[in-house]
Amino acid sequence: MSALQTTRIVLAARPHGEPVAADFRTETVAVAEPAPGQVSLRTVYLSLDPYMRGRMSDAKSYAAPIQVGDVMVGATVSQVIDSRDPSVKPGDHVLGYTGWQTHAVADASAVRVLDTSRAPLSASLGVLGMPGFTGYAGLLKIGRPVSGETVAVAAASGPVGSAVGQIARIHGARAVGIAGGPEKCAFLRDELGFDAAVDHRAPDFADRLREAAPDGIDVYFENVGGPVTAAVLPLLNTYARMPVCGLVSQYNATAVPAGPDRLPGFLSAVLTKSLTVRGFIQAEFVAEMHADFRHDMATWIAEGKVRYREDVVDGLENAPSAFLGMLRGENFGKVVVQVAPAAL
Amino acid sequence: MSALQTTRIVLAARPHGEPVAADFRTETVAVAEPAPGQVSLRTVYLSLDPYMRGRMSDAKSYAAPIQVGDVMVGATVSQVIDSRDPSVKPGDHVLGYTGWQTHAVADASAVRVLDTSRAPLSASLGVLGMPGFTGYAGLLKIGRPVSGETVAVAAASGPVGSAVGQIARIHGARAVGIAGGPEKCAFLRDELGFDAAVDHRAPDFADRLREAAPDGIDVYFENVGGPVTAAVLPLLNTYARMPVCGLVSQYNATAVPAGPDRLPGFLSAVLTKSLTVRGFIQAEFVAEMHADFRHDMATWIAEGKVRYREDVVDGLENAPSAFLGMLRGENFGKVVVQVAPAAL
Repeated sequence: MSALQTTRIVLAARPHGEPVAADFRTETVAVAEPAPGQVSLRTVYLSLDPYMRGRMSDAKSYAAPIQVGDVMVGATVSQVIDSRDPSVKPGDHVLGYTGWQTHAVADASAVRVLDTSRAPLSASLGVLGMPGFTGYAGLLKIGRPVSGETVAVAAASGPVGSAVGQIARIHGARAVGIAGGPEKCAFLRDELGFDAAVDHRAPDFADRLREAAPDGIDVYFENVGGPVTAAVLPLLNTYARMPVCGLVSQYNATAVPAGPDRLPGFLSAVLTKSLTVRGFIQAEFVAEMHADFRHDMATWIAEGKVRYREDVVDGLENAPSAFLGMLRGENFGKVVVQVAPAAL
Repeated sequence: MSALQTTRIVLAARPHGEPVAADFRTETVAVAEPAPGQVSLRTVYLSLDPYMRGRMSDAKSYAAPIQVGDVMVGATVSQVIDSRDPSVKPGDHVLGYTGWQTHAVADASAVRVLDTSRAPLSASLGVLGMPGFTGYAGLLKIGRPVSGETVAVAAASGPVGSAVGQIARIHGARAVGIAGGPEKCAFLRDELGFDAAVDHRAPDFADRLREAAPDGIDVYFENVGGPVTAAVLPLLNTYARMPVCGLVSQYNATAVPAGPDRLPGFLSAVLTKSLTVRGFIQAEFVAEMHADFRHDMATWIAEGKVRYREDVVDGLENAPSAFLGMLRGENFGKVVVQVAPAAL
């Protein structure tokens, strides 16, 4: 049997501003045999998520940057080819973090065997995975909506935002979704049951948002920044909470933006409205909440209380362009790359 | 006996930017006789505090603005002239909120009789009053320093900042005070026991602050905004807390400041460091914590663990200029106006 090879996409250069195709490079290399305690894997699905943009830069952040020449990071669903650990069997499907490549070797302790009878494999990368948990933990630990309050969230048709809005409704809050374009807004209202949906591309966006939140906003789940934040700020109520899990609108910025300086006004709002602004990474809450999350979310999906949409991209070679499109908001639902069929 | 008169300072005009003398007007008017349940009062001390600047404007905030023609608001220590309520006796000293005037009539339920044996009367306006409680509640409820952490506070020789730094030390934290000028910095180190003090007017302020916080900053008690905040931000550690009780550096702003726009960078810091930024008004915590505060602070003062400094201004007629000086940081310690002798 010939040695296993992997085709992988590596970081060719650190992007300056919006990443371009030349920042990625595809290469094919041999994969080592699994050592004792390891498994060899065939990637089925690769998750694309906005945080990856941060990892491409070398600015200090909560996670170390990807080095130039390294494979792009990312969560994956894979099928086990070979296993040298008793906890994992060949043919199993596992959740791992093997990145933008077709094959990999990983420690068995770094993967989790998936129960394929409970949910589609790809859901482990979205509604039942890191993005869904980000929405769940940030909303419930920091946002803490109570019945009758209003929760606003941007990128609302994406995997984090759609979880936030639907969980808000489960807790009795009014869910206001913000998304780009009428199609996504209709989806939020008609498919996900949001109380209101507002198109941030509309010229009268700020007015529409105000109409959609007649009692103000008690929780703004921040994942975009930029003009959406500016429109939300005047609507925040006293004691409003603002979990900050992402700022996708500014990830490609190359310089400190021109004025006016909006920080003093932001801090004034924090002061005069007794706001709580709290950045977080979902990992902070895994030990405390992930078991509850898996139980709750699986229950809600089974009951039809949480629905989700995926934007499936075919083929690893299309990952870079799909990633760039996602940073521009061109995706519609959770972006997953189908790298190979689920079973051979 | 002739009818009681009060000399009072009213808001003559809403300031545009930094208040000027013409924004205040002095007038003398008759004071009504106390009705049943009321007391008539002779002001001894008037407290001057930065929040008053906000009340002079009609921008929406946590408290209603002063109307043009109304007496300037403020906490006061007064002696009771006449009482028509059994809970208060003539000659008692009371804490009230009768504003910038020499005499007033107030509901007995709106004043609190002071125990003059426990602390100087004026302390009820500072270390044992609203400013001290602001520092106590904001630090302990929001800042939550633990032993070994670093707490930084600006306006550190003022009544809020001096409470914050000293309480931080009582809880085992390192206290870094920021103040304007070498005299105040020496006071912080030598009199109040701060671990370090940094002059924000020094040209190398940011470098000095970094040296003063070699392990970074875990709690930044925000009461000034502006360049101090900018210097603190890069030093904040992961999970740092930022109680926001004031922004005195920007109270006189007349327009949105010129760029660059520092809000995206601020939100990036919130995200990548998992910061907590929380605005608050001390009133939020009164029911929960004020009894503990009075007990703790009186104990700490008696034990010498909390010290304080007052900047006593003589005569109500000097209140406007003292107030303007305070907004510029010219005071040294808690500003109180001695309106009349404590006892006649």
